[in-house]
Amino acid sequence: MDFSIRAANVEDCKDIARMITELAEYEKVTDQVKITQRDLEQDGFSKNPFFHGIIAEVPEQHKSKEGHMKIGYALYFFSYSSWMGRAVFMEDLYVMPEYRGKGIGKALMSKVAQVSRSIGSGRGCHQLNFTVLDWNKSSVDFYLHQGCTDVTTDMGYHYMSCKGEAMEHLAQP
Amino acid sequence: MDFSIRAANVEDCKDIARMITELAEYEKVTDQVKITQRDLEQDGFSKNPFFHGIIAEVPEQHKSKEGHMKIGYALYFFSYSSWMGRAVFMEDLYVMPEYRGKGIGKALMSKVAQVSRSIGSGRGCHQLNFTVLDWNKSSVDFYLHQGCTDVTTDMGYHYMSCKGEAMEHLAQP
Repeated sequence: MDFSIRAANVEDCKDIARMITELAEYEKVTDQVKITQRDLEQDGFSKNPFFHGIIAEVPEQHKSKEGHMKIGYALYFFSYSSWMGRAVFMEDLYVMPEYRGKGIGKALMSKVAQVSRSIGSGRGCHQLNFTVLDWNKSSVDFYLHQGCTDVTTDMGYHYMSCKGEAMEHLAQP
Repeated sequence: MDFSIRAANVEDCKDIARMITELAEYEKVTDQVKITQRDLEQDGFSKNPFFHGIIAEVPEQHKSKEGHMKIGYALYFFSYSSWMGRAVFMEDLYVMPEYRGKGIGKALMSKVAQVSRSIGSGRGCHQLNFTVLDWNKSSVDFYLHQGCTDVTTDMGYHYMSCKGEAMEHLAQP
């Protein structure tokens, strides 16, 4: 199936917001999603954006049952490893269910890697980090097949978060 | 004990590089550390920095056995959650062993939270993420005591990484 992979622009935010919700449904965490199309527009497409996006698109004749042509996305931002230096964090990688198994996820992830390797005139990112749900076996297998390592299983690193009241409390001077 | 907490500047990179190595020794991962003082100077203190730093400093009379007055640091960068929006990732939090138990780690982490809450004129970060080694019980307890949640244990998210040959391969167009 024909598909194209390109950098996201502000007009994609409606579809990105839709697919974020679809991904959250798949991951069974819809109650956690507070983000809106407008948040994405402001946070990703103004000066000093908080994230960047990649869109997978299919031509008209392959549009989804609901009429969508934007059928996958990746969100990423630049990060830093105090061991390895410049790095990139892939926040989301998603392909709509009816388009899976066609190399679209691999193409999206590859684009994130290409973009992050090529920044900074020869001093690009050497490491791509992300999280995956341990029960999502098809995703875990996909990533391991790409040569990724499970840092939690191999080294014991746990991902932790401070938010809500704990964050408010912590931010008191 | 008196100590001060302030934003890091380029003159701190020598001490940050030293403390990154000390932290890696504590975490038993020194073979992974490739970063140099010069990398930190270039990546953290030029246009579009990849990270920001906070330094903990003690006065002359409390300098360490080896003569250090910069005795703790935090490294962080802004990130993004597709559920919650603007976020901050704390890459490192470290206090030299002889200065632990005096509230310095809490003060460093609190400063990261303060800075990230206050960016973006009322649209600051609502979430602070980081990783911790599961065998490092004193650190895990410290973070849980601050109200942080273990996303790996509670939800099953594993931290994964693509680097080296796998990253090169993935970045091929």
